Amino acid sequence: MVRVIAFDVFGTVVDWHGTIARHVDGLTLGVDGSEFATAWRAGYAPAMDKVRSGQLGWTRIDDLHRMILDEILDRFGLSMDDRARRELNLIWHRLDPWPDAVAGLWELKSAFTICTLSNGNIGLLTDMAKHAGLPWDCVLSAEVFRHYKPDPQTYLGVCDVFGIEPDQMLMAAAHKSDLQAARACGCRTAYIERPFEFGTTPEALARKDLTPEADFDYHARDIRDLAAQLLKTP
Amino acid sequence: MVRVIAFDVFGTVVDWHGTIARHVDGLTLGVDGSEFATAWRAGYAPAMDKVRSGQLGWTRIDDLHRMILDEILDRFGLSMDDRARRELNLIWHRLDPWPDAVAGLWELKSAFTICTLSNGNIGLLTDMAKHAGLPWDCVLSAEVFRHYKPDPQTYLGVCDVFGIEPDQMLMAAAHKSDLQAARACGCRTAYIERPFEFGTTPEALARKDLTPEADFDYHARDIRDLAAQLLKTP
Repeated sequence: MVRVIAFDVFGTVVDWHGTIARHVDGLTLGVDGSEFATAWRAGYAPAMDKVRSGQLGWTRIDDLHRMILDEILDRFGLSMDDRARRELNLIWHRLDPWPDAVAGLWELKSAFTICTLSNGNIGLLTDMAKHAGLPWDCVLSAEVFRHYKPDPQTYLGVCDVFGIEPDQMLMAAAHKSDLQAARACGCRTAYIERPFEFGTTPEALARKDLTPEADFDYHARDIRDLAAQLLKTP
Repeated sequence: MVRVIAFDVFGTVVDWHGTIARHVDGLTLGVDGSEFATAWRAGYAPAMDKVRSGQLGWTRIDDLHRMILDEILDRFGLSMDDRARRELNLIWHRLDPWPDAVAGLWELKSAFTICTLSNGNIGLLTDMAKHAGLPWDCVLSAEVFRHYKPDPQTYLGVCDVFGIEPDQMLMAAAHKSDLQAARACGCRTAYIERPFEFGTTPEALARKDLTPEADFDYHARDIRDLAAQLLKTP
């Protein structure tokens, strides 16, 4: 039934928090890398909402990341020249995969078309795939559809690209709101547990609600578990 | 200097003529497969020109291929029901690679970002990559830019996606007009010889002008030869 699996990327396939926290700690700026990563990501949804509401014209995530970076550098009391900011901003192109991701994607690729459906821009996602060894059949992005998730144009855009019905597309994500929006478009849904998406502190763990939801078609510990569920012989 | 290599696909990476001729011969319709393939492809440029001139709204290659197929079935005096037409049209998703293509692309992928820049639609190119084992870092298409080659929006669109200057993008194609258009945008160019693009008859061979042109940065026998030229240590 399912022909295409579209993956959310940040948090679902790659560990944005851990990668950025480690990188920022390594820069020895005198700030806590984990707090910096959390603050950077916290600016993401509000920035996209400005685009989704029309307050801001179409803007790539690279540019939204840079706008947020400029804000939080001020807030953390850090000075940094333009070139260093541009370099730091590119860390989003080199996020490390969760340990199961590469093996799980290769398993799924044998039976399905696997693509990204991320708000990240195409260049970012392509650099990340090379860095992390993610074997996508196709890199799809909000940039292709000129709409950010959770706008329905993104989920339905994937179906249109592949000429499939919504129920032949499985959206895989570690975020329930993403899956609810895909489900509202008629797509199938797979929730991927990512308990450490925000880090490993008690507060970070408390931010993730891993409870299985009856609304979703699959609930998987990780991507290899999803592959095992989808590829199991009856 | 070069960071991204964008490949034309039909004729440059895959053998559309040979694949379609063999497939049509295998259907034993009573027509010559080679002639049928040539006729199908001959409708391609005029159909795209209708879109480029605005006579036809944005239309995917899948739909243009089907329009042309309907015409040539009439011309060849063949009757075929809708379902068989839809299936035959999908042969463009399963074109076989030239013998050097997969190995050459893997070699280039180690040092460059390699992507498609084809007038084929994303779904077609993704299916083809899975069928042929083409290891693209990213599938880019006229469909992303809503312009067909040789419109400058396509070549410059690739540069924009990757945030690079035109001279950091190398266009590789077996068609001189494609390369001339990329060159006019400031991109670098690599001509790939494909003497058998139209088949192996004397008429087919005469249609290909393999003369090296001073205008192009590289002239390669095939994709492995291009890799050898680009990766050679000085």
